[in-house]
Amino acid sequence: MADSTSPVTPPVSRSNSSRNRSWWGWGTADKALPDAECTALGGLVPGSAATPLPVPDISALELPKVRVEPPSALAPLMSAAPRDRASHTYGKAYRDVVRALNGDLSAAPDQVAHPRTEQDVIDVLDWAADADVAVVPYGAGSSVVGGVEYRADRHRGVVSLDLSNLDRVLEIDPVSRAARIQAGTLGPDLEAQLRPHGLTLRHFPQSFEFSTLGGWLATRAGGHYATLYTHIDDLVESLRVVTPVGVNESLRLPGSGAGPSPDRMFLGSEGTLGVITEAWMRLQDRPRHKASATVLFGDVHAAMNALRAIAQSGLHPANCRLLDPGETALAGVARDGESVLVLGVESAHSPVGERLAQLVTLARDHGGSPAPAAPDAQDAAEDAAAGTWRSAFLRMPYLRDALARMSVITETFETACTWDRAPGLYESVRRGLGDVVREVTGTAGTINCRFTHVYPDGPAPYFTVIAPGRRGEEVAMWDEIKTAAMQILTDHGATVTHHHAVGRDHRPGYDRQRPEPFAHALRAVKQALDPAGILNPGVLFDTAAAG
Amino acid sequence: MADSTSPVTPPVSRSNSSRNRSWWGWGTADKALPDAECTALGGLVPGSAATPLPVPDISALELPKVRVEPPSALAPLMSAAPRDRASHTYGKAYRDVVRALNGDLSAAPDQVAHPRTEQDVIDVLDWAADADVAVVPYGAGSSVVGGVEYRADRHRGVVSLDLSNLDRVLEIDPVSRAARIQAGTLGPDLEAQLRPHGLTLRHFPQSFEFSTLGGWLATRAGGHYATLYTHIDDLVESLRVVTPVGVNESLRLPGSGAGPSPDRMFLGSEGTLGVITEAWMRLQDRPRHKASATVLFGDVHAAMNALRAIAQSGLHPANCRLLDPGETALAGVARDGESVLVLGVESAHSPVGERLAQLVTLARDHGGSPAPAAPDAQDAAEDAAAGTWRSAFLRMPYLRDALARMSVITETFETACTWDRAPGLYESVRRGLGDVVREVTGTAGTINCRFTHVYPDGPAPYFTVIAPGRRGEEVAMWDEIKTAAMQILTDHGATVTHHHAVGRDHRPGYDRQRPEPFAHALRAVKQALDPAGILNPGVLFDTAAAG
Repeated sequence: MADSTSPVTPPVSRSNSSRNRSWWGWGTADKALPDAECTALGGLVPGSAATPLPVPDISALELPKVRVEPPSALAPLMSAAPRDRASHTYGKAYRDVVRALNGDLSAAPDQVAHPRTEQDVIDVLDWAADADVAVVPYGAGSSVVGGVEYRADRHRGVVSLDLSNLDRVLEIDPVSRAARIQAGTLGPDLEAQLRPHGLTLRHFPQSFEFSTLGGWLATRAGGHYATLYTHIDDLVESLRVVTPVGVNESLRLPGSGAGPSPDRMFLGSEGTLGVITEAWMRLQDRPRHKASATVLFGDVHAAMNALRAIAQSGLHPANCRLLDPGETALAGVARDGESVLVLGVESAHSPVGERLAQLVTLARDHGGSPAPAAPDAQDAAEDAAAGTWRSAFLRMPYLRDALARMSVITETFETACTWDRAPGLYESVRRGLGDVVREVTGTAGTINCRFTHVYPDGPAPYFTVIAPGRRGEEVAMWDEIKTAAMQILTDHGATVTHHHAVGRDHRPGYDRQRPEPFAHALRAVKQALDPAGILNPGVLFDTAAAG
Repeated sequence: MADSTSPVTPPVSRSNSSRNRSWWGWGTADKALPDAECTALGGLVPGSAATPLPVPDISALELPKVRVEPPSALAPLMSAAPRDRASHTYGKAYRDVVRALNGDLSAAPDQVAHPRTEQDVIDVLDWAADADVAVVPYGAGSSVVGGVEYRADRHRGVVSLDLSNLDRVLEIDPVSRAARIQAGTLGPDLEAQLRPHGLTLRHFPQSFEFSTLGGWLATRAGGHYATLYTHIDDLVESLRVVTPVGVNESLRLPGSGAGPSPDRMFLGSEGTLGVITEAWMRLQDRPRHKASATVLFGDVHAAMNALRAIAQSGLHPANCRLLDPGETALAGVARDGESVLVLGVESAHSPVGERLAQLVTLARDHGGSPAPAAPDAQDAAEDAAAGTWRSAFLRMPYLRDALARMSVITETFETACTWDRAPGLYESVRRGLGDVVREVTGTAGTINCRFTHVYPDGPAPYFTVIAPGRRGEEVAMWDEIKTAAMQILTDHGATVTHHHAVGRDHRPGYDRQRPEPFAHALRAVKQALDPAGILNPGVLFDTAAAG
């Protein structure tokens, strides 16, 4: 058994995801909606602009002057090409896309580094610490919270550290079902390298195609599945992290009680304490049995009660997604005023029909009406439906970009709270934030909610806001709405983020919810591991100037 | 729903567990084996002493001089009575019991504090920091790793901070299924206060009767159940911790992705960073469906393969305990050379017979033979059997104490590693540690193993060592064996502890396995939260003198 760990040797070609990336918006440039479709889509939102904002020509954009040049030894890793700098200026939040469309690239990094090895990462950090250059770790840039955008002004320059060349599964242990994976590996590339072994990480965030393992780990990403293993945290066996004071590698362990978890200190550290270069990740056998069902509810609060009963049942559905009436209408999947609960069960080993039946019974006990549908996803029609939904899900950010071009404010925010607070929070967002949207935009706009993850003690509600913006004022308008949203979350004891991370945009809410002694401790850790203060400054906390 | 949180008002009488405690050994004094039984038990171990070590009369013991007196405001909380000091000198490791039996109380604290409120805890810490007095947080003293024993010498005095008066469930949220519980609450008292609500924490470490919620949290305790929620960590919704620089209270959240988890920094901090005073804990409905089965294996490695298949099946058995041939023989539950796999399934909501059948099939597929037995624990006979096992399990520490009195070395150590390393580790302990035991004791002794917890990527093996010691040299002999055991764990990349914690005894192995940048960060946290260095000095790491 001891020799069963088999190194994965065949090189795997990079997925399409890493080619032809849009520098200003989501995903690949070829999937952006053409102008005519943008206009048509905008037509669905009363008050939107009449024509789409043009996508600026990158060669016409004014980028800030490059302030720092790398030493010759590092020069081969670095680029100051306008396209590299432009595409590494922002993440992919609504406000990022709008600013890019407006040609505002004042926050562009001076250099973009593409390390090919861990040693390259170490060398870049060493140089940066000496040269007082800020380093912003960059996986695939899908942050929606300002996580990769330098906003401070106290460094001599800024390097975006793009880990996309570290894209390999290095080793697979089929006995323990684990793999050693480089941090820059994109979702599809990672799964492609595991598939021949019958294994899967089974972590599918909405950003799956355009985000990396390292990004997931640094931000405590949430996957597609609703229960049990929701966050990437629980799939980590060990981490390897380059910090400015040395490489931190934890033991590969299935479980341990030896002191505070070293991995949990780096999970969620968002590039402020070190650069994750690889991780041993827990894998799963690929599911062979799947079944799903849809249940309709006339009353959203009854649906929430059903959701809670299911979350507390120990039945662990893979999917347990509740769409409120607005979200249901937007998806066009049921009648006016109805809420839809989508249930899915999966297993690599045992038939799941019985478990699905129990789940549906629980939903019915709480007033739900099962929709007539093939309950077995092995069935081709059901597979096709799931595929359609998956496509729509992955297409959403492109629609968001199209609406952004029509000056429609369209953004999401998400949270988690205990069940006792969930109904009040839901109503407060609908009403309280509704008032704010009306005040800011002059229209009722749309505020929808879906519940993406559920725990025995509470759900993770995910809100979508859509409302017409005034051209040129979209970012300021959204910021006003977002500030109010964060205050509502604080008022209800809900977290500022369930899985989007803190970055820079969530700082006001995060600073309120983080216990002060812990903040003090975290700053001490920062000072210990990054004494020059070069790593992703301004994310999670403020730190003193480099010293 | 918002008002559904119901404060628990009726005071609950303290369980028997907190009365009549043995000052030198496990549990309550009335359950210690009488001399004749000790002698009979010793007779089963060739080479043991002929007569039991006498239990010293506490009034005859020489305790070190009391070096510090509390200020008058704190005097009502403090005791320097010999019995209090003696019973708070050690935890309950084998080496603790032997030293107590030998009347060695040189490490006794100067004072034992019994705070009645959180403010009392704050006041004690404030005074201690000013007075340069070390504070050793004490739940119920069941540490087996030197976690409550002061061994430094740089403080003016030592206070054992006994939290047993903070023993109440303060609030229950039946909607979210969670409760706010004081840290000093013993296992039975905690469950007694939850039972009227149909709820349970469902965390049953072997020390259940004589350990507290706060102790479980501070040491990342492992419960009885084999899969899914093994450690207390996963049951935590929020913590309240008194640190010397302020009270740290995290939000009650079912899940969050807002920065590194504040709770995970305190979980496993073993009293070095603060004193946990209360926690919101996730509860479960009491299980109504139970079933169990026993499967026999002729080959222990085949049994380990079955264990792995089950751990990776997603069937989540509540119990999945493998006894190797030696452990099986000790328990007297099967024939010579056989291994026994005990499987149990539980649910509060759904029948579990089908799931048990699937588990048994998996075990049979790997060469196991199901033992003929009533598969349904609702059955009275089966309940009785489970009760017998539970009694034996809870009785084990008393037998250990009896053997200690017969100068028999009898101690356990536990670990976790990935599956690819588990067979090699098992054989190394059997052979390599076997050689050490022979060298140290002159006899083969007994080294058994049971697997107490299993994860998809690895098991948690739990080893028992029994061998005759030479009277007066037992501690040194065990220390030699333990040092070798820790080295074997290190050599196999296994953790120095899966759920017993680090304390002071596991420092050598822990210092080797802890990544150095993390150690550096942890020391920085210590300095930030406990600048005077008074909290449980020497546990987890060394820190500089008070400053």
